[in-house]
Amino acid sequence: MQRFFVKIAYDGTAFAGWQIQPKVSTIQGEIEQRLSRLFSNEEVSIVGCGRTDAGVHASQFYYHVDLPSKYPSDQLKYKLNNMLPGSIAVYDVFSVEPDTHARFDAEERTYRYYIHHEKDPFVVGKSWYYPHELDIDMMNKAASVLLGKKDFTSFSKLHTDVKTNICEVTKAVWKKDGEGKIVFEIKANRFLRNMVRAIVGTLVEVGRGAITAEDVQKILEAKDRGSAGMSVPAEGLFLAGITYPFIND
Amino acid sequence: MQRFFVKIAYDGTAFAGWQIQPKVSTIQGEIEQRLSRLFSNEEVSIVGCGRTDAGVHASQFYYHVDLPSKYPSDQLKYKLNNMLPGSIAVYDVFSVEPDTHARFDAEERTYRYYIHHEKDPFVVGKSWYYPHELDIDMMNKAASVLLGKKDFTSFSKLHTDVKTNICEVTKAVWKKDGEGKIVFEIKANRFLRNMVRAIVGTLVEVGRGAITAEDVQKILEAKDRGSAGMSVPAEGLFLAGITYPFIND
Repeated sequence: MQRFFVKIAYDGTAFAGWQIQPKVSTIQGEIEQRLSRLFSNEEVSIVGCGRTDAGVHASQFYYHVDLPSKYPSDQLKYKLNNMLPGSIAVYDVFSVEPDTHARFDAEERTYRYYIHHEKDPFVVGKSWYYPHELDIDMMNKAASVLLGKKDFTSFSKLHTDVKTNICEVTKAVWKKDGEGKIVFEIKANRFLRNMVRAIVGTLVEVGRGAITAEDVQKILEAKDRGSAGMSVPAEGLFLAGITYPFIND
Repeated sequence: MQRFFVKIAYDGTAFAGWQIQPKVSTIQGEIEQRLSRLFSNEEVSIVGCGRTDAGVHASQFYYHVDLPSKYPSDQLKYKLNNMLPGSIAVYDVFSVEPDTHARFDAEERTYRYYIHHEKDPFVVGKSWYYPHELDIDMMNKAASVLLGKKDFTSFSKLHTDVKTNICEVTKAVWKKDGEGKIVFEIKANRFLRNMVRAIVGTLVEVGRGAITAEDVQKILEAKDRGSAGMSVPAEGLFLAGITYPFIND
């Protein structure tokens, strides 16, 4: 057996998220099914760098998998791309040491959230349509409150089984993308469930003038999910980058 | 009654084309239904600048319509955008002289056709995935054969009811879009049914080295639909611009 890292991207619109589940189509399920078909219908399990919810996209995502040495990496890439639907693309396949782990070895993750203010038929499902002005400067001021090692309980789903809600955020910035959209980029060593969508929802409250950067500080300190803003819809969210100590790109 | 011009854009993926038809969803049908609802369920007919086939998109499209003077233009735009699905956007509504015609007054139309060579989940349905190299220089040489006033019988659907197959092509150029796609832009006073997709299919034959620019010249002169290449799929095609003598944008 050989361990491979596979770099992919996917449009999450039609999937019930990354994680395999019975009776619905998931990205993990689609990939495992094709890999199994390639290897004499043996059961194949893959391990993703993270889990995205239903409707969330990934412009960069890695998984690892142990496979018999039947095909070289570039042939695996070619075969998988041919078998998988157009909404899942394989960008790279390469062999790694047997103890390399797609999830545990990831040092940082970057998410992006896109918002557009004018109706645009060509970004439907890939950006959130919010037809009101937002004050980007105020949103950036509030976003800077999140930087550093903080407890993000206020921005997480209740009753998840993680041991700590402390995340180290190294980037949290709003920008214009030059095509009529605004985009929030957030980078951290780890993210809690629903965290990015709850943060964006809260920063949108700042952008429309309902709350201030100081309020965001108080929300963070409250360590209470009820205090943050609404979660924004999945469709604007992209997992956009994963950092590993052994990959440069 | 007041005649209005309405500037729109649409993602054609989910529609059976522009033109209204029984039992299927069309762009014209969706719009007429909403307009009728806005005006006491009176029947409303709209006239488009052209007709796009199933799966073809429009990044710019105009229609005209006669409506009672109930709402000012900006309110009409706002109301229509709210009623129409995300895949149809209204960019502008303005009143025109009663004899202004969206189809007959159009002087030139521009189409674009997008092709990508590497699998990309985020352009599915809006660009044609053609996983082989194409020689753009050769395709541009062949495209220049189409310039001027020519008979495009070889690139039209058989048995259509138009009186003449002569079109004046003023632009026909392949470019790279800087995001991994190549795009063909063609501008003419008029287009025959299926013409752009048959032209692109023939130019792709040139790009992969199967035929030459001289062959394209012969195909054009043959005035026989059987001589041209296959039509490429609808999904890469966009109606991208309409020129009227009274509109600058």
